[in-house]
Amino acid sequence: MRIVGVDRDGGVEVASLAEDGETATVIAGLEEFWCDAGGFLARPPAGATVPVSEMRLVPPVLPGARVICIGLNYLKHVAEGSYRDAELPEYPTLFARWTQSLTVGGAEIPVPSSEEGLDWEGEVVAWVGRTLADAGPDEALAAVAGYSTFNDVTARRAQKLTSQWILGKNADSSGPLGPMVPAAEVGDLRDGLRVRTRVNGETVQDGSTSEMVYTVGDTLAHISRTFTIRPGDLLATGTPSGVGYARTPRWLLQPGDVVEVEVDRLGVLRNTIVSRRSPGTA
Amino acid sequence: MRIVGVDRDGGVEVASLAEDGETATVIAGLEEFWCDAGGFLARPPAGATVPVSEMRLVPPVLPGARVICIGLNYLKHVAEGSYRDAELPEYPTLFARWTQSLTVGGAEIPVPSSEEGLDWEGEVVAWVGRTLADAGPDEALAAVAGYSTFNDVTARRAQKLTSQWILGKNADSSGPLGPMVPAAEVGDLRDGLRVRTRVNGETVQDGSTSEMVYTVGDTLAHISRTFTIRPGDLLATGTPSGVGYARTPRWLLQPGDVVEVEVDRLGVLRNTIVSRRSPGTA
Repeated sequence: MRIVGVDRDGGVEVASLAEDGETATVIAGLEEFWCDAGGFLARPPAGATVPVSEMRLVPPVLPGARVICIGLNYLKHVAEGSYRDAELPEYPTLFARWTQSLTVGGAEIPVPSSEEGLDWEGEVVAWVGRTLADAGPDEALAAVAGYSTFNDVTARRAQKLTSQWILGKNADSSGPLGPMVPAAEVGDLRDGLRVRTRVNGETVQDGSTSEMVYTVGDTLAHISRTFTIRPGDLLATGTPSGVGYARTPRWLLQPGDVVEVEVDRLGVLRNTIVSRRSPGTA
Repeated sequence: MRIVGVDRDGGVEVASLAEDGETATVIAGLEEFWCDAGGFLARPPAGATVPVSEMRLVPPVLPGARVICIGLNYLKHVAEGSYRDAELPEYPTLFARWTQSLTVGGAEIPVPSSEEGLDWEGEVVAWVGRTLADAGPDEALAAVAGYSTFNDVTARRAQKLTSQWILGKNADSSGPLGPMVPAAEVGDLRDGLRVRTRVNGETVQDGSTSEMVYTVGDTLAHISRTFTIRPGDLLATGTPSGVGYARTPRWLLQPGDVVEVEVDRLGVLRNTIVSRRSPGTA
């Protein structure tokens, strides 16, 4: 089952994509879906079946959802980057995306005017389906409704200007998400899903979710002791080693490049890099 | 003119509060308002006048708006905190809040179960009224629709767990905002608005916006070179010196404490600290 957002006439609905990707069957309105994601995913979709060509695919994400991202969750990625000499913290390093930075596979990702290119970070996102406040790790893991491929495309120059990363993590259309696959079909990330990133066909990242330092359950439980996690909030679980800025020579995505993230059971997410659009349309 | 969000029957509208605070006159629906904030603020409100007692006041904020916060913008605050030995960066240090952390004056702010108290950070927020992409500082400053008082209430323990601050900056109801005062009535922050914070009546912060290192126009212009700023996005401009964690002995807000932020021309924002609510209602 691949869950997508569809925009037919201004309102976003959540739908299930057919195997061939040609049609999608509507499940519920966006807000309605996130009020009972687990219930909707347990039943066959009951709405209209519509050709994908007649609607716009969007992430099935609530505008006010929080996109919580783990920064350093694969040891080999820590070792290649700016934080290699720092002690590994006891808790996950968390940074923020706003939903305005999200997009879908197939979308074009513009290089901001202030950057010499963009960096890739292939990873897995967990979608939270239930409210979590002061939760334990098992309760938190059980609240995950599904998982998606994600490319945490990064404006490295902006990210590294100061101690805080968020400017470089929120460029326009810089967060493409693949369809959500229900958690029951994915299993436990600790069992190891292979995560690969390719640039113009060349593999640049090849890791496994079994390498994660901080698990989804532990991380959500930890967050829920500071703020209440709501249905529809997302947790991006961090990227394996192989990013572009850490290479010699440095390798950044340029207009025309095609970047793909492939994750076992979650599929392939493909996007093209383009030049900065003119102001107002970016 | 004091602009507030009002929730009468599920949909949020933007309204103008009467001088006595007893009634509010509706201006437009929330989305409609942010499509033309400058236009609406230039005309008298045309909607119904309703007693404030008959509606719930909420921040007039779009759920998907970005709350971009400047971390270190007053030199005396830099000097008192963890970053006192670091070189002042050329660019503002930016961190993120999600709108889910926002609330209004009068709201209760719960201490998360993982904290020994909360810290205050009185400041001024700028509301952006127009799209900004690759903007210059003058264009960016002219796009500001208005300003509000803000208390960037901080869960210090969570903030300082790792290099990234956002966990401690997004506790439930930890970001109270005062009504928005149109930019034309406020003038230029560089001319100096006095910003004071009081805890149970005792003044703990007393600064002036003229002390800011990074101006609103420069900061918005800088951000707009990485991502397109949209109408309704907010910029929190940073706090003066006098926060609680930097004191000897350390002073954190406890349940029962009343914290006030007062800013010239913007008014007084008052909130009460409470214990963590039970899970699910927080």
